[in-house]
Amino acid sequence: MSYGGGYGAGGYGAPPGADPQLWSWFTTVDTDRSGAITAVELERALMNGDWTPFDLDTVKLLMTLFDTDRSGTIGFTEFAGLWKYIKDWQNVFKHFDRDRSGTIDGEELRDALGQFGYNLSPSLLDLVQKKYATQTGGRYAPAPGITFDRFVRACVVVKQLSEAFGRLDTDRDGWIQINYDQFMNTVLCLP
Amino acid sequence: MSYGGGYGAGGYGAPPGADPQLWSWFTTVDTDRSGAITAVELERALMNGDWTPFDLDTVKLLMTLFDTDRSGTIGFTEFAGLWKYIKDWQNVFKHFDRDRSGTIDGEELRDALGQFGYNLSPSLLDLVQKKYATQTGGRYAPAPGITFDRFVRACVVVKQLSEAFGRLDTDRDGWIQINYDQFMNTVLCLP
Repeated sequence: MSYGGGYGAGGYGAPPGADPQLWSWFTTVDTDRSGAITAVELERALMNGDWTPFDLDTVKLLMTLFDTDRSGTIGFTEFAGLWKYIKDWQNVFKHFDRDRSGTIDGEELRDALGQFGYNLSPSLLDLVQKKYATQTGGRYAPAPGITFDRFVRACVVVKQLSEAFGRLDTDRDGWIQINYDQFMNTVLCLP
Repeated sequence: MSYGGGYGAGGYGAPPGADPQLWSWFTTVDTDRSGAITAVELERALMNGDWTPFDLDTVKLLMTLFDTDRSGTIGFTEFAGLWKYIKDWQNVFKHFDRDRSGTIDGEELRDALGQFGYNLSPSLLDLVQKKYATQTGGRYAPAPGITFDRFVRACVVVKQLSEAFGRLDTDRDGWIQINYDQFMNTVLCLP
């Protein structure tokens, strides 16, 4: 929410009934005390397990999902949903990062996407791994791992693309007919 | 290149005939003096006009374009091509950033893509603007601008998608037939 004046006439206090822990996190992220979190503030606050910052594209994905009043910023009510979403994904990440390396490797990615119902071919899995890995891999080196924020984005992209394809494949034969505008639209709506 | 030992037995010197200015830039980026630039080193070195760092996805795009020996890193010979590519794009960016704001707004984006031969519909242009803007915009706020690194990525994505569509549209009727694997493959190969 784009509320500039803080909560209540006295300035910047927790709204009545607010979870004190959640309010404390909110005020930590809201560095300029505006009562609303911008993409830049959120980007500064979010860290992967290896202390690398979240990608701006992941931050924008989170903002888009939880900015329910379309103000361009995240208010305290919206923040509760965002926080829970991140916590839930952290549990998913921990569950699939079986070797506790802090990143998702090829096999872990296959298992995660498979459990979500997306059984991609080995070559598609390889593309997802390369696209979302933090480093570029060499021809002979093992594919690098995927950090938390990029793992969330990878899963959301595979889900959104598969759903878009399913909607267009009305006769369920595995092929779709699509024009240029639909095609571009589908891709440009991805996080 | 993944050459670990530096150039020549004596350690880390410029290769014979190297442009001294380019060599000096290369050694600045190659902070660990390994003779090869990694994605992380390149990310640390590249800055937009507003001092924001390049996105990892743009850095990986650059690495993929210029890592001709597929080593996963950029050697000095590869670095020359990379440097020229960035310089050329900086000139393109300056040319289209007519109001010298340091970012590309909606009209500037339309002109740039139009000049490259991509006349997108207003709604597609709006999607490109939103996807590559650095900030999330509010419902009533003007769409935020696109910084240099994300502008390069936006242009490469529109080009790659349009070319992929054109290759599949063999009868040039503006419609393509595509299966799930082709569809996913096209999108996952985008930077």
